[in-house]
Amino acid sequence: MRTAVLGAGSWGTTFAKVVGDAGNPVTVWARRDEVAREITEKGTNSAYLGDIPLGHNVSAQTDAAAALADSDVVVLAVPAQSLRDNLEAVAASLPPEAVIVSLMKGIERTTGKRMSEVIAESTGHDPSRIAVVSGPNLAKEIAQEQPTATVVAAPDVRTAEIVAELSANSYFRPYTNTDVVGVELGGAVKNVIALAVGMCDGQGLGDNSKASIITRGLAETTRLALAMGAEAHTLSGLAGLGDLVATCASPLSRNRSFGGLLGTGLTVEEAAERTKQVAEGVKSASAVLAIGEANGVELPITQAVSAVIDGRLRVDELGPLLLARKRKHEGPVR
Amino acid sequence: MRTAVLGAGSWGTTFAKVVGDAGNPVTVWARRDEVAREITEKGTNSAYLGDIPLGHNVSAQTDAAAALADSDVVVLAVPAQSLRDNLEAVAASLPPEAVIVSLMKGIERTTGKRMSEVIAESTGHDPSRIAVVSGPNLAKEIAQEQPTATVVAAPDVRTAEIVAELSANSYFRPYTNTDVVGVELGGAVKNVIALAVGMCDGQGLGDNSKASIITRGLAETTRLALAMGAEAHTLSGLAGLGDLVATCASPLSRNRSFGGLLGTGLTVEEAAERTKQVAEGVKSASAVLAIGEANGVELPITQAVSAVIDGRLRVDELGPLLLARKRKHEGPVR
Repeated sequence: MRTAVLGAGSWGTTFAKVVGDAGNPVTVWARRDEVAREITEKGTNSAYLGDIPLGHNVSAQTDAAAALADSDVVVLAVPAQSLRDNLEAVAASLPPEAVIVSLMKGIERTTGKRMSEVIAESTGHDPSRIAVVSGPNLAKEIAQEQPTATVVAAPDVRTAEIVAELSANSYFRPYTNTDVVGVELGGAVKNVIALAVGMCDGQGLGDNSKASIITRGLAETTRLALAMGAEAHTLSGLAGLGDLVATCASPLSRNRSFGGLLGTGLTVEEAAERTKQVAEGVKSASAVLAIGEANGVELPITQAVSAVIDGRLRVDELGPLLLARKRKHEGPVR
Repeated sequence: MRTAVLGAGSWGTTFAKVVGDAGNPVTVWARRDEVAREITEKGTNSAYLGDIPLGHNVSAQTDAAAALADSDVVVLAVPAQSLRDNLEAVAASLPPEAVIVSLMKGIERTTGKRMSEVIAESTGHDPSRIAVVSGPNLAKEIAQEQPTATVVAAPDVRTAEIVAELSANSYFRPYTNTDVVGVELGGAVKNVIALAVGMCDGQGLGDNSKASIITRGLAETTRLALAMGAEAHTLSGLAGLGDLVATCASPLSRNRSFGGLLGTGLTVEEAAERTKQVAEGVKSASAVLAIGEANGVELPITQAVSAVIDGRLRVDELGPLLLARKRKHEGPVR
């Protein structure tokens, strides 16, 4: 199976290594020539993964059409908000029979669409041939070959099995699922909840508070996902709870770290200047809120995080607001 | 409302402060005279809580009968495995109309009973007057007045409301619930899962692996709880997911730390010598496994932890065993 990976960031490069280590040839499309050269010639991507060897099955290209030619599987690992533009640029080169895999976690701001929906819309690809990969998957740990489980979801289980087969190796263990909505929402809303946990961290709140935010964060994610047709067990599984816990536990998480900076009182602009990027949860928060409203689901944590991002709520008001919700009896998720 | 707290350890003393700070007089029963004196005279319990002030509503006694006299609420905070003996010693002094509150998290080894069952059996108290308190409640953070939410469960919601009212203050927020089975199992099995997470830690495994263990740990806890009549939302709430996440995230957790020592290859005896105690999960694991078997529920993590404790499984085999389970499709919780 020939695989092309579009995007040479941390997760795209790591996934290329995973597929390569499973015994399959992989071509990474990198925008910058020096990155493509380093991957092909030295077998490393030092900007993201230090000196971790990517293995002999991985090479790179700056020419997207050449990277895509004859691919059986095309893996997309570009920033969520630029997915549509990236796809339009390469649409003509996409092999029509290829399985497309999304590694992205986010909701398109302008449309409120999930990543697999954006892919189907902008490529005309049959949704049954589109898969998403999500789980407790901190890229750097996987690159270090730490044992990791993940979920591969597609509407057609055979598509999910192709991707599971393609990527399963001694340290990477994919489980298949057909609940694409649940897997994608778990990954996207998680970034927003991780911002809230980071904000609590920045405010000096302890593990009791953060565990409450994680618990209620998963509850609001589950409410939204169920309203959109997902299944509860997906959200209580690796792509829901698992991903949320790994992200919120790890100092490697960009969303949690970015939330931490906001928690100390920095604005989004100041935090972005400090980290040289804007965390995906900051971009997706308003879109998540909008789909919550469209589905009649209350999302108190997402709402509070959005308000802090937009400067409508002081960050020191967030903890008390979320922890002091009037709700004297613990009720069912829906 | 007059409250007696039996047990002057970390959580008992902290809960006494919580109730005191809610405006109620509290008498702590301490076994050792110097501890009782320190609490009453200095208002501290330095062995467990450093110089944190317990507040002017808290005093202590070494005479259990005197501490219990005229109490409206009796809070039990003794080691889970010695609860029955402790209760037999004070049974005659328990005011028959008092509400009894369990702070303990464990399963009685000799009988497989939950703490509230042991209380009802050995005191003859009506179960409707027995409440349990559990949640993401690291005692030290609460003593530091960090905002914390918890669950108070009793078969009769009015009993739960009495305890919620008694303990609610500016930093401690109780939610009521009537699912005693779910709340008690969440707290007890969590200690075993925290041991597994600690063992992974001791083995040098990363956050991806640990998040997977937490996810599957909550799934097996939920399967067991549902089989015993609990409700799913309790396990996905503060006393299930919340408590598990707080415990597994915190360096303050005794079960996680103890698991960490076992993870480096120490035996239970060696770890106990190092920490001067045996973590509750070590004592409850075999009892949890037995109630799983009695209810026909497979508990792979508890089983693996038990095997490590008993020396039937090398700790370096635990991670691969749990992370490599043959289970290619993610399925529903039951």
